[in-house]
Amino acid sequence: MEIYLDNSSTTKPCSEAVNAAILSMKENWGNPSSLHRLGFNADRAVEEARQIVADSLFADKNEIFFTSCGTESNNTAIIGAVNSLKKRGNRIVTTSIEHPSVLNTMRRLEDEGFEVIYLKPDQSGVISENDIFEAVNNKTILVSMMYVNNEMGYILPLEVCKRAIKAASSPALLHCDAVQAYGKLPVKLKNSGIDLLSISGHKIHAPKGIGALYIRNGVHIKPYLSGGGQEKGMRSGTENVPFISALGAAVKALPDIKKQLEKTKELSEYTREILIKSGFVKINSKTDALPYILNISVPGYRSETLLHFLESRDIFVSSGSACSKGKGSYVLSEFGLSKDMVDSALRISFSRFNTKDDADKLLLALKEAVNTLRRSY
Amino acid sequence: MEIYLDNSSTTKPCSEAVNAAILSMKENWGNPSSLHRLGFNADRAVEEARQIVADSLFADKNEIFFTSCGTESNNTAIIGAVNSLKKRGNRIVTTSIEHPSVLNTMRRLEDEGFEVIYLKPDQSGVISENDIFEAVNNKTILVSMMYVNNEMGYILPLEVCKRAIKAASSPALLHCDAVQAYGKLPVKLKNSGIDLLSISGHKIHAPKGIGALYIRNGVHIKPYLSGGGQEKGMRSGTENVPFISALGAAVKALPDIKKQLEKTKELSEYTREILIKSGFVKINSKTDALPYILNISVPGYRSETLLHFLESRDIFVSSGSACSKGKGSYVLSEFGLSKDMVDSALRISFSRFNTKDDADKLLLALKEAVNTLRRSY
Repeated sequence: MEIYLDNSSTTKPCSEAVNAAILSMKENWGNPSSLHRLGFNADRAVEEARQIVADSLFADKNEIFFTSCGTESNNTAIIGAVNSLKKRGNRIVTTSIEHPSVLNTMRRLEDEGFEVIYLKPDQSGVISENDIFEAVNNKTILVSMMYVNNEMGYILPLEVCKRAIKAASSPALLHCDAVQAYGKLPVKLKNSGIDLLSISGHKIHAPKGIGALYIRNGVHIKPYLSGGGQEKGMRSGTENVPFISALGAAVKALPDIKKQLEKTKELSEYTREILIKSGFVKINSKTDALPYILNISVPGYRSETLLHFLESRDIFVSSGSACSKGKGSYVLSEFGLSKDMVDSALRISFSRFNTKDDADKLLLALKEAVNTLRRSY
Repeated sequence: MEIYLDNSSTTKPCSEAVNAAILSMKENWGNPSSLHRLGFNADRAVEEARQIVADSLFADKNEIFFTSCGTESNNTAIIGAVNSLKKRGNRIVTTSIEHPSVLNTMRRLEDEGFEVIYLKPDQSGVISENDIFEAVNNKTILVSMMYVNNEMGYILPLEVCKRAIKAASSPALLHCDAVQAYGKLPVKLKNSGIDLLSISGHKIHAPKGIGALYIRNGVHIKPYLSGGGQEKGMRSGTENVPFISALGAAVKALPDIKKQLEKTKELSEYTREILIKSGFVKINSKTDALPYILNISVPGYRSETLLHFLESRDIFVSSGSACSKGKGSYVLSEFGLSKDMVDSALRISFSRFNTKDDADKLLLALKEAVNTLRRSY
């Protein structure tokens, strides 16, 4: 029996999502732009899913735009916002622990001449209020801050960004990469100060290949893909109806978010405790991190060696994020972890389908690893 | 029984594609970037599909990059090429009958200061060799020409572009939107002179939400989406493994392209003949057009009225392209059709699943329409 503890990399599509995709591919396969009823039926499926996603975010239906993935949502939000506001200033504020789809987009903007401020976690592992207030000025056109860090589970101070933008009388739009938070924390957009928010389907048991971007009513950004004018001109390209339907179904199938958060907190705390008790595991995630993500280190043993040992025991975790493909994590370094801790780090990430039994088996396998493997350093 | 004659808008996913997507969602759902075997298995599925697509184009596997749709492929090719070559010139050559995903991208480039030449069909309905040679000069950095026009079936003179680029000692890359040609005409890329070529899955019985871009070995263009570096850095974003697998399966399931082209030619000629014989239908597509697309007009009757009448008889066609959503077709106007002909135009588009019986029923329904409906003008 496989134990999957790598849910922040991707999740197994839930049966509801799979069934919705199958129905769409087999029966509701029209082009939503077609004027006949095959088109109309496909369009209706898209709009139903849009309503479900909107409701889940306490947003309006016309504030939700479907994209092909979280990366596209992030690129669209950032480039679109900057292209809309570049006459009003040259500064962009973000953090040094964002996902590569944000960081690499920022580097492109630096090449184009924008000033990008990368806020770093301080010694206590948080982005400080003071740093945010200092960074945001009245020439700042975009603040982009993730909701939850994908490697550590750290929940970032978005609310401070809202206040800092206001205090500086800044024209900045506030963008949030909520890929790791959506479906796990209650994300309520009304009155949040957030103008743009990115989500991804495959982190919440929808298939890979579907994402969405929230654009607050009244906010205008330049579209990224141009063409046939789908998604009210914001995202051209024939809609991925099967996976839009699947995303709707996956969102509908989400359990009560607060209750599930409590359950996951219990599981996470249990895992944390037994791993600490083992004596050979260090916990990198702070206790107030999102419980779905638990970053640990097993000093003396390289992440990749441990990962493959666990895999041989049918337990799946990751070293850093999936995107980093084994390179040492820049995120953990930014949090001030020593090289030893970074090199031996593993990310355990839970879904609603994990149990304490999974944690027990993880511990057993880690003990076996430490007893079997030679120390790397 | 439904008669679907709108295959240039979208196609019904074939069982092979659907099954591949289901298998991926249910069993092979890992993140291809993950270092454990769930990731490895997903990555292998992506690479298998890449090989199939490459083989179908007589291209190398490392020349194929998956995208979310034809529109993304076109945006990536055009913007990427221009950003790579802008130091070498300011001129772009395209045609006035391209898909909106090309035309609207060109308009963005015009706004940025590029000179875009839009070649128009001449009185005989073709883009002339002379016009192409005149347009391409040594400051031309991109020529973008579709393989087959999506509304008329006109096959464009790509080979002339290759010669014109050479004759002008132009640095231009040659991009081809082959969305309507791929899987229908033999598209052989080796030695074609084509540097960049866009395809879309949902026009060849794969689901909506998957496309690919061919980038010739040795050609370097700037990536469009930035992030985790998937697709060798050319297209960041977690891969849509289910639909990449489905695209591979759909391509594998394609019949022999030349034989199917002959069959479709016979069906198209049959349809053309019986419609001409009816006396009230005019044929807009020329006899040397791609037989999969047959554009007709029923003078005196508005396209949309006819479309809905046919729909009531379970026959599905389109007026213009799906993307135009009922607006009068700019493409037909560019071909010099009169307003009457444009306003009463219907596009019949075949797949390998259509038969002469479908054509007979279309004719019967059109006769009924003409006998039942009041002339609009």
